[in-house]
Amino acid sequence: MSLVPLKDDLPSFLDQYLPTTAVRNAPQKPFVTLTYAQSLDSRISKGKGLRTTISHPETKTMTHYLRYQHDAIMIGCGTALADDPGLNCKWAPADNPLRTSSSPRPVIIDPQGKWDFEGSKMQQLFREGAGKPPVIVVRDLSSILRRHPDATYVSASANSAGQFDWLRLMLHLKSEFGFESIMIEGGALVINQLLSRPDVVDSLIVTVGAKYLGLEGVEVSPPSGEVNLCNVKWWRGTVDAVMGAELESPQLPWQ
Amino acid sequence: MSLVPLKDDLPSFLDQYLPTTAVRNAPQKPFVTLTYAQSLDSRISKGKGLRTTISHPETKTMTHYLRYQHDAIMIGCGTALADDPGLNCKWAPADNPLRTSSSPRPVIIDPQGKWDFEGSKMQQLFREGAGKPPVIVVRDLSSILRRHPDATYVSASANSAGQFDWLRLMLHLKSEFGFESIMIEGGALVINQLLSRPDVVDSLIVTVGAKYLGLEGVEVSPPSGEVNLCNVKWWRGTVDAVMGAELESPQLPWQ
Ligand SMILES: NC(=O)c1ccc[n+]([C@@H]2O[C@H](COP(=O)([O-])OP(=O)(O)OC[C@H]3O[C@@H](n4cnc5c(N)ncnc54)[C@H](OP(=O)(O)O)[C@@H]3O)[C@@H](O)[C@H]2O)c1
Ligand SMILES: NC(=O)c1ccc[n+]([C@@H]2O[C@H](COP(=O)([O-])OP(=O)(O)OC[C@H]3O[C@@H](n4cnc5c(N)ncnc54)[C@H](OP(=O)(O)O)[C@@H]3O)[C@@H](O)[C@H]2O)c1
Repeated sequence: MSLVPLKDDLPSFLDQYLPTTAVRNAPQKPFVTLTYAQSLDSRISKGKGLRTTISHPETKTMTHYLRYQHDAIMIGCGTALADDPGLNCKWAPADNPLRTSSSPRPVIIDPQGKWDFEGSKMQQLFREGAGKPPVIVVRDLSSILRRHPDATYVSASANSAGQFDWLRLMLHLKSEFGFESIMIEGGALVINQLLSRPDVVDSLIVTVGAKYLGLEGVEVSPPSGEVNLCNVKWWRGTVDAVMGAELESPQLPWQ
Repeated sequence: MSLVPLKDDLPSFLDQYLPTTAVRNAPQKPFVTLTYAQSLDSRISKGKGLRTTISHPETKTMTHYLRYQHDAIMIGCGTALADDPGLNCKWAPADNPLRTSSSPRPVIIDPQGKWDFEGSKMQQLFREGAGKPPVIVVRDLSSILRRHPDATYVSASANSAGQFDWLRLMLHLKSEFGFESIMIEGGALVINQLLSRPDVVDSLIVTVGAKYLGLEGVEVSPPSGEVNLCNVKWWRGTVDAVMGAELESPQLPWQ
């Protein structure tokens, strides 16, 4: 399905939040953009695996415009398994036709190797030359049952709860793949962790759709408690609002 | 504390959602405006009884501007008990100085008579001539332990779960007190019920503050599931967005 045109005032609104134009605070790590679409009641889907329309097609175009500006696009395996997303880029400037290189490289956070590239939408797009093959981040390379020749597997060390450290992971991805910018699109578990990581996340771009999805939906809300934002701006779409912001670093007790 | 000035573009934004200017769909009942302020993660406070700043002072002025346009202002007893709110109106047009009559009449939904007017902020404002005395809606007039002479008590019949029917209650309040418009300010239990009552709610005005309050906060999300909105518009403040909308009536199976 083709995209609706990009809204004229979106590029200037997004400018200060993009890896290509933002002021970089930590040049040693990749620039990280955290982005997702939520309902007013902070749900990002009606339920796990239920495809949910949250916002107007114009914000889908925005997502592809954002993908165009990033080297890599990251999701958790929960999203890969539930939604089978394509993760390629369908937007390009008028003077620069779409090609495989326009798309960011997918990165799947899949510690236990649950997700299979074989038979996925990502594989289909890769075969059509419309997307890049993924990097799959696992805990233990020897545990991968079925390695796909076109996918790249990397291992990262996890803490006792089986979780990767986000900052270390970003530095590793930059040194191994040269990613200067990574856009993270979800899902809930990934977002909820990263909302309290101002040391990892450079920009936050949230689309708020004018609907409620209800208590049963998949929720975004940081378990770590209050998160304050700075450099906040809002864009108004036909029916949605989009917020751009940065995560405020908490004041440390000794500061 | 005095209010910051009303933002110039708010009155025209709010116009279509106000009892004084909106198109009335059901003139037999009071015009009902449901309004509250939430964080991005749909929390309306950090925790019950924890006073929480969610948005910029300019949206507080908006709230008082809205109160000015309504005959009554309604909250649940959970909010009355947790926050001890004043519920008066501190805004008036430049050519019409503030007086007691500028304030809406407080209506407290208090089926079991838990809240006491005596010693409350509402009583203090009433004594100072800065607010009206409340109407307290209970289930059984004979069960009220301490009746206050300045408060008015009315009883409403409840269903087996102890809940009033919202539509019947609104009609009752109109016929008994002449309320043509009622603004409902919360809290969570009240809002969560009313989000699925397009037959009761005429306008919805939600302030979205640019912060997260975290999982422990008091949440708004309709337990009844998806709620769609129509006639949506957004206003952008200094750091917040405000959404005006109407609740979409669900398509009934026989329609
Ligand atoms: N509206 C939107 O913008 C949007 C965007 C994306 C997704 N979604 C929705 O979100 C839902 C999926 O969310 P989700 O929370 O279930 O899945 P998710 O966040 O995509 O993936 C969660 C999984 O990723 C792994 N993971 C996350 N953080 C990790 C860390 N620090 N270290 C190691 N592994 C980590 C864990 O895998 P293991 O369990 O194997 O350890 C975890 O279970 C779907 O319904 C999807 O539609 C919505
Ligand atoms: N940010 C904002 O805009 C905003 C606005 C208002 C409040 N708040 C916050 O919300 C929190 C309070 O919310 P809450 O959910 O605890 O309280 P609430 O909604 O104010 O009050 C709930 C109580 O009202 C009664 N009630 C509600 N619906 C009823 C019905 N249909 N029939 C009969 N009685 C009904 C019940 O009383 P009984 O239990 O006695 O039966 C119920 O427990 C506080 O933390 C407050 O700060 C925030």
